[in-house]
Amino acid sequence: MRNDGRQPLQLRPIHIDTNYLKHPEGSVLITVGDTKVICTASIDERVPPFLRGQGKGWITAEYSMLPRATDQRNIRESSKGKVSGRTMEIQRLIGRALRAVIDLDALGERTIWLDCDVIQADGGTRTASITGAFVAMTQAINKLHSQKKLSKFPIHDFLAATSVGILTNDQAVVDLNYIEDSSAKVDMNIVMTGNGEFVELQGTGEESTFSYNQLQEMLKAGQDGISELFELQKEALGEEITGKIKK
Amino acid sequence: MRNDGRQPLQLRPIHIDTNYLKHPEGSVLITVGDTKVICTASIDERVPPFLRGQGKGWITAEYSMLPRATDQRNIRESSKGKVSGRTMEIQRLIGRALRAVIDLDALGERTIWLDCDVIQADGGTRTASITGAFVAMTQAINKLHSQKKLSKFPIHDFLAATSVGILTNDQAVVDLNYIEDSSAKVDMNIVMTGNGEFVELQGTGEESTFSYNQLQEMLKAGQDGISELFELQKEALGEEITGKIKK
Amino acid sequence: MRNDGRQPLQLRPIHIDTNYLKHPEGSVLITVGDTKVICTASIDERVPPFLRGQGKGWITAEYSMLPRATDQRNIRESSKGKVSGRTMEIQRLIGRALRAVIDLDALGERTIWLDCDVIQADGGTRTASITGAFVAMTQAINKLHSQKKLSKFPIHDFLAATSVGILTNDQAVVDLNYIEDSSAKVDMNIVMTGNGEFVELQGTGEESTFSYNQLQEMLKAGQDGISELFELQKEALGEEITGKIKK
Amino acid sequence: MRNDGRQPLQLRPIHIDTNYLKHPEGSVLITVGDTKVICTASIDERVPPFLRGQGKGWITAEYSMLPRATDQRNIRESSKGKVSGRTMEIQRLIGRALRAVIDLDALGERTIWLDCDVIQADGGTRTASITGAFVAMTQAINKLHSQKKLSKFPIHDFLAATSVGILTNDQAVVDLNYIEDSSAKVDMNIVMTGNGEFVELQGTGEESTFSYNQLQEMLKAGQDGISELFELQKEALGEEITGKIKK
Amino acid sequence: MRNDGRQPLQLRPIHIDTNYLKHPEGSVLITVGDTKVICTASIDERVPPFLRGQGKGWITAEYSMLPRATDQRNIRESSKGKVSGRTMEIQRLIGRALRAVIDLDALGERTIWLDCDVIQADGGTRTASITGAFVAMTQAINKLHSQKKLSKFPIHDFLAATSVGILTNDQAVVDLNYIEDSSAKVDMNIVMTGNGEFVELQGTGEESTFSYNQLQEMLKAGQDGISELFELQKEALGEEITGKIKK
Amino acid sequence: MRNDGRQPLQLRPIHIDTNYLKHPEGSVLITVGDTKVICTASIDERVPPFLRGQGKGWITAEYSMLPRATDQRNIRESSKGKVSGRTMEIQRLIGRALRAVIDLDALGERTIWLDCDVIQADGGTRTASITGAFVAMTQAINKLHSQKKLSKFPIHDFLAATSVGILTNDQAVVDLNYIEDSSAKVDMNIVMTGNGEFVELQGTGEESTFSYNQLQEMLKAGQDGISELFELQKEALGEEITGKIKK
Repeated sequence: MRNDGRQPLQLRPIHIDTNYLKHPEGSVLITVGDTKVICTASIDERVPPFLRGQGKGWITAEYSMLPRATDQRNIRESSKGKVSGRTMEIQRLIGRALRAVIDLDALGERTIWLDCDVIQADGGTRTASITGAFVAMTQAINKLHSQKKLSKFPIHDFLAATSVGILTNDQAVVDLNYIEDSSAKVDMNIVMTGNGEFVELQGTGEESTFSYNQLQEMLKAGQDGISELFELQKEALGEEITGKIKK
Repeated sequence: MRNDGRQPLQLRPIHIDTNYLKHPEGSVLITVGDTKVICTASIDERVPPFLRGQGKGWITAEYSMLPRATDQRNIRESSKGKVSGRTMEIQRLIGRALRAVIDLDALGERTIWLDCDVIQADGGTRTASITGAFVAMTQAINKLHSQKKLSKFPIHDFLAATSVGILTNDQAVVDLNYIEDSSAKVDMNIVMTGNGEFVELQGTGEESTFSYNQLQEMLKAGQDGISELFELQKEALGEEITGKIKK
Repeated sequence: MRNDGRQPLQLRPIHIDTNYLKHPEGSVLITVGDTKVICTASIDERVPPFLRGQGKGWITAEYSMLPRATDQRNIRESSKGKVSGRTMEIQRLIGRALRAVIDLDALGERTIWLDCDVIQADGGTRTASITGAFVAMTQAINKLHSQKKLSKFPIHDFLAATSVGILTNDQAVVDLNYIEDSSAKVDMNIVMTGNGEFVELQGTGEESTFSYNQLQEMLKAGQDGISELFELQKEALGEEITGKIKK
Repeated sequence: MRNDGRQPLQLRPIHIDTNYLKHPEGSVLITVGDTKVICTASIDERVPPFLRGQGKGWITAEYSMLPRATDQRNIRESSKGKVSGRTMEIQRLIGRALRAVIDLDALGERTIWLDCDVIQADGGTRTASITGAFVAMTQAINKLHSQKKLSKFPIHDFLAATSVGILTNDQAVVDLNYIEDSSAKVDMNIVMTGNGEFVELQGTGEESTFSYNQLQEMLKAGQDGISELFELQKEALGEEITGKIKK
Repeated sequence: MRNDGRQPLQLRPIHIDTNYLKHPEGSVLITVGDTKVICTASIDERVPPFLRGQGKGWITAEYSMLPRATDQRNIRESSKGKVSGRTMEIQRLIGRALRAVIDLDALGERTIWLDCDVIQADGGTRTASITGAFVAMTQAINKLHSQKKLSKFPIHDFLAATSVGILTNDQAVVDLNYIEDSSAKVDMNIVMTGNGEFVELQGTGEESTFSYNQLQEMLKAGQDGISELFELQKEALGEEITGKIKK
Repeated sequence: MRNDGRQPLQLRPIHIDTNYLKHPEGSVLITVGDTKVICTASIDERVPPFLRGQGKGWITAEYSMLPRATDQRNIRESSKGKVSGRTMEIQRLIGRALRAVIDLDALGERTIWLDCDVIQADGGTRTASITGAFVAMTQAINKLHSQKKLSKFPIHDFLAATSVGILTNDQAVVDLNYIEDSSAKVDMNIVMTGNGEFVELQGTGEESTFSYNQLQEMLKAGQDGISELFELQKEALGEEITGKIKK
């Protein structure tokens, strides 16, 4: 039994509220246990300099936490005048992951900005961000598609993420909360597509190491957990958009 | 009639949801029409260097907007590496306003941080922040008081704010939304206490000026609007805390 | 009697030395008691990006203090690598105030930069900056006008500023010096035009509040004080330029 | 056959020159094909604030490239005034990896700084940095041990890293050079200990994905490659130090 | 004849106005032709970390130009967020030069900050800064000495500086104005003490070179010019302080 | 006898290894005693904004030290977020010096970047950088010349630098190592051309001064030392390139 009463391979309660905000082209509030992240998708009809003139689009992400998303207040990165290494790592991960399921040529010369702002944190904020950002991005792209601005629907598969880990009792678990994450021997983030392929694997022994067998155990736990997330994404997006992705 | 159907002296629908987040000592989501601000209060058992050793507390505020709180996405201040002049002006205003109704000596040598994060903006974000932050601050201070950490309840009055302005048709109005604010000839923010005193007045002709009579008209409109806000704050805080303030 | 022997509604001795520097298109040294500010106006034949191609001009201001303008040496903002909130607030105020009396369309697509550098500070540096910057700006614009670069003289009124406040003895006073300003219960900056309209009102209770009656008292004190400043500006600019403004 | 004539599972020629510089407590020049990295270890008799007073040590790493380590000159991060997300990710990885094989309590309250400066880059700079930094760190710690400053030898296993990937022809390969890395469908960095445990796995589909079978293939390729690196590390460190680690 | 009618070895008109500002412990306005620099000396009863506890003092300088000190307006370094290389070079030079004539042990554990702010520039701002800062520093130190805070008067010689150069017509000249400086083939700054010793020599061929004979010519011109500056410094400081230095 | 056994006018052993790195257009490792600097030259087919459209080229330099080039580890300037005054002074000196021997018009509208990265420091890093950077720059320019991209060979003379100084025993010496440099009364850097002209002279009394006679002694020592450096540069560049320079 885990510290919050879950089974090892049981996810926390998860909700994806769509159209959460008024202005963005796509927006969700994703809730994973006590972790809450606002994900918005903004369409920008320009691309970064390195892509200009190639007729190709771009997906990029930014991640932040409200100062009091956590138990102790954190100093704002804007006050410090720089973005931390942890934040950069996470936003690079989110953008890279999303780019794996989209045909950037079919997107055309525009950028989708995904902003993931954690308003309450209890572990798993980066994987919740990826899972929520996929939905927000899909909504924004569907808006472009409905406006006939895209030659085809450029998203070719679902994408979701969860964390897995090895606790101090050597139990492999899925979807770690903050207390579990702080003490786990191994922490791994897994990003997968709807057809069961891997997009990212980031496994880290925390002043510890892990064996080949433990790796296999974690991969299995992650695959099962992520398949549940796809169902929630489909429900949030509705049948019509789901149909466009699977086509 | 105004662009959203209101009377000149009518506020937008306002809600103050308390205990909005799990970690902070005080937190509210304040909704003023389509403007939504998360206000949290965090207790820090230290004071800034200039106050150390004086047995006196401090109240300070930070303000930010999510990148897509507005119609067009804004670049994050953390990415720019600096806080804009507008943000600094607003957070200085919020902190200064709140300090007017609290006895800093009775607070003891600790700081209350108020974080006002705008998740959706439609005009009046700074006055909504003040009105909401007062509630969050009071909750945090009540927590200290309930824990017997304070010799007396240090907040001696209510505090709320609204905007008033002169529209292009020379009509004085209260609680301007974004469209009104963008075109108004004069924009004034008023912060008042429960007993009808002024704390801050910031009136600005936008490439325009205003007469003594227009000033009086705006002051009157602001006083009426703010008195409604006090009722909402009392409701949000409940009778017991309201009683502590009025004592 | 005030700490420097003045009557409540008496300004300090004020001088405006024009053509103080060789290079700028307009420059003054304004002296208000022991407060001394160099105000220069520089013409830049470009406008900021948000105005390009609209045939409209811009007025912007920057404000700074020499490190030893004050009793204690201040660290330079260039050494700190960032401009303080106080500085930003002041320079935004100066620019906004000046824009209220100029027809930006008639200025044409160019920017006037007003630099206000305080070489000695004894209270009231921001209002002295506005009063002095108006003269420097008018000189620079007159230079453009004399060179037939403007279709008409774009300044349509005088503009000046002073501070008013409520001292600890509840006396309303005008033009506070540093000692008064440090202990005043209320501090208000008033910017007005030659025809008696308000441009900016910024009143602040310093850990204190003020009543409606006190506000009226301060407004009256400010109006009287500012009317004296207009006479000094006219004298500094001379009859010819004064005539162009009033026409 | 690969673009430089290697077999899929063949590493590039690798050399580890020890005692490369005069001042540091440990220093190597590691050469992996055309990739050359100077790794130095510096002993600092202090720990970061979060560890003070706990009698525990710390390992931290910094990574940089000379501007012309690459085919195109890069702007220095010191000129840009900030460290890039890529650099932060790499230096966090290096430090975290090294901490997995050292007993920080036995190190005592001191920090070892590992500086990895790439003087020539041809792919695999982060894995070369880890492999080289392990040797530099071990030398520095051996110096402390020889001076009787440590109760026991705190490094309990070898640590090395390599990259694996899936090329466009679906071939799994080890130790990718720059040309391979730029076009690979999948890129994975593997950090392992001498006893065959994993410390870090970071696998990324580059606008692509990978299957469970491809993952297994890459893991196998990485394990074989890394085992060769341990032999080179032992040779570089010599029998005596190798004996201390294995004990 | 030079462009302003001077002889090759003739300085521009020079004035040193002492006690120019109210707050600093020492302050001068030095005028060298059209170059005007405010030099202030501030006493700080602390020393930088590297000197703490050694009973020794420190002299440091900062240099800046008002944005419109020059013909074209310069962007403020505070707005750019960093100090330019040129500014750093100059302020390091001023501090180093002044330290050559003061006994830092006799100063005791305190710092004298010299702030040199150019309000109008026409060449030679760094040498004017040194010459003026010497006077401001001496006044501040004399204040300490008069207050019996120093065991002895720690300044043991006068210090002044000028520029010399080789014009395009191969003429060696002293005290170059801006037009001369912009086109000179060689530019050299010379800092000397009252007893004829050199403190700093910084000679630079501007996309050009200079011969041994030209160097001797410039040294001679500089020595003559600087000896006139000592007379002006003595006059500015008065007989009593001059006597303390020479003793 | 000096602390390392040298005669007063004897240089340390010096080596210039050319083609040290694979990517840059020119690269050397210059070794002066225990000082080791990697100098690379990179061709950039653009010029800075102030030169655009003039058909003229530019030479610019950047200088840095690895953190552990020195006895104590230095914090990286990229981590500090700013380049120190010392670094800026040195890189401005290197660029300015090199520009004295090249015809920028004949270079055409392109920039040569010289990067001087000190991997081990024992005094004289700036003069070693100049001497090495000249060789790297010449190689890069020879590459352009061999590709027929230049109308003529634009370098018209050799350029090298050394340090001279006055030790505490009043002995004038050449090429000071770190221990000598730290305690010397006077330190002077001399940059000269092959035909015996001066390019830069930077002499500094370190809390000390120097006489006219000492200056002459140092100049003589520098001239002799530098003439040996030209021989090493010629050897490193080879006869063909040497011939192009002398022509």
